[in-house]
Amino acid sequence: MGNSSNFETTVHNLLINLKIDITKIKHIEYFYQAFTHTTFANEHRNCKSFQYLEFLGDAILQYVISNEIFKRYPDYKEGEATRHRSAIVSNKNLSNIAKKLGLMNCVRTGKNAFINGKNEKIDSDFFESFIAAYYLEFNLNKTIEFLQKYLFPSIEQFSKSNLKDPKTIFQEFIQMHSKSLIHYHSEEKDNEFVSLVIVDGQTYGIGKGKSKKEAEKAAARNALEHLNF
Amino acid sequence: MGNSSNFETTVHNLLINLKIDITKIKHIEYFYQAFTHTTFANEHRNCKSFQYLEFLGDAILQYVISNEIFKRYPDYKEGEATRHRSAIVSNKNLSNIAKKLGLMNCVRTGKNAFINGKNEKIDSDFFESFIAAYYLEFNLNKTIEFLQKYLFPSIEQFSKSNLKDPKTIFQEFIQMHSKSLIHYHSEEKDNEFVSLVIVDGQTYGIGKGKSKKEAEKAAARNALEHLNF
Repeated sequence: MGNSSNFETTVHNLLINLKIDITKIKHIEYFYQAFTHTTFANEHRNCKSFQYLEFLGDAILQYVISNEIFKRYPDYKEGEATRHRSAIVSNKNLSNIAKKLGLMNCVRTGKNAFINGKNEKIDSDFFESFIAAYYLEFNLNKTIEFLQKYLFPSIEQFSKSNLKDPKTIFQEFIQMHSKSLIHYHSEEKDNEFVSLVIVDGQTYGIGKGKSKKEAEKAAARNALEHLNF
Repeated sequence: MGNSSNFETTVHNLLINLKIDITKIKHIEYFYQAFTHTTFANEHRNCKSFQYLEFLGDAILQYVISNEIFKRYPDYKEGEATRHRSAIVSNKNLSNIAKKLGLMNCVRTGKNAFINGKNEKIDSDFFESFIAAYYLEFNLNKTIEFLQKYLFPSIEQFSKSNLKDPKTIFQEFIQMHSKSLIHYHSEEKDNEFVSLVIVDGQTYGIGKGKSKKEAEKAAARNALEHLNF
């Protein structure tokens, strides 16, 4: 079957590009499975789709990233850690990496199936199934090394310190459009602060918080939500 | 502080009961943190709550259990694997194990906080934070050994083959209450089967499926959903 051997060649080339010595691979079938869309598996006997690998790969990623965040940011609150992890394993981020690695060129689908080129969820799913194949062929430590190279850079990129303060973002937005000054008006009520963010006498947002600073941030966040970028 | 040393003693005793050599422990602070409820942490300066450990422990469990299911049941469909994993890491199951291990006796809470003794979610959260402390003190392999002993038995217990067929469960239920016979009435409609499950002329459930067998199972499942056990 020319088609099938095309598929295999594409997968081999991907592995070679990723500097994997394919002569030493013991479970090439996992890599084939990782790139087999359900529509292809449904049309072929004894052919497994990528989905079960995706199940495993997802859990590997969650663990490796959680562990890394815990090590790097020991003072995080749980909510910050969860948000940070979500950004890293988001469909958007994994889709970008899947494309960068060229994973999507390897995927085989059913005859009449069409995989939308802009479907981040699908890209991300194939990144996960690929990670599981890599893990099953090599081991956890090698997989962590692989992720260090390709996924860990986004840990820094999405870190809290790199996410700008909403007040700064709002200020930059206003400065782009006018020379008006931003004014925050805050009041304390029942042990809670309420802030309004005002530009040219117009209220752009309102926010609450346990401190004045928190309330102002919340107001700026609220204002940003109502702006059309 | 008598109270604080009571807490420490309780944690030490737990570890001794679990055959952990506490003289060799390097990060006892992780075990203290694992049992520190948010209400306690809020009332004490520089005191971390269990939540960040729970974040890590949850990811460790998901990974370890996913990996084990993948190894044991290579022919699962992804949906079966997901359901099986959910049963194992469910609040109910982890709560049972947390109680069996005596984890809940160690938890320290704020002055006026009250942890409901029947809150499976809380028990399960503390199981996860404890697993993270164990992992940080020892390592992944030791944690897997620990889970092999205490959590892996439920992998077999919740395996698909141990989950009885709904038709069998329904039959056992009827036999407990009467000597009536169960009758399934099935019809094919538009390439689909519809089955009714009937006892003493009364319809107990209805189900659809691609085969007669599937439709009957679905009908029995439907009947079980409407019975009050």
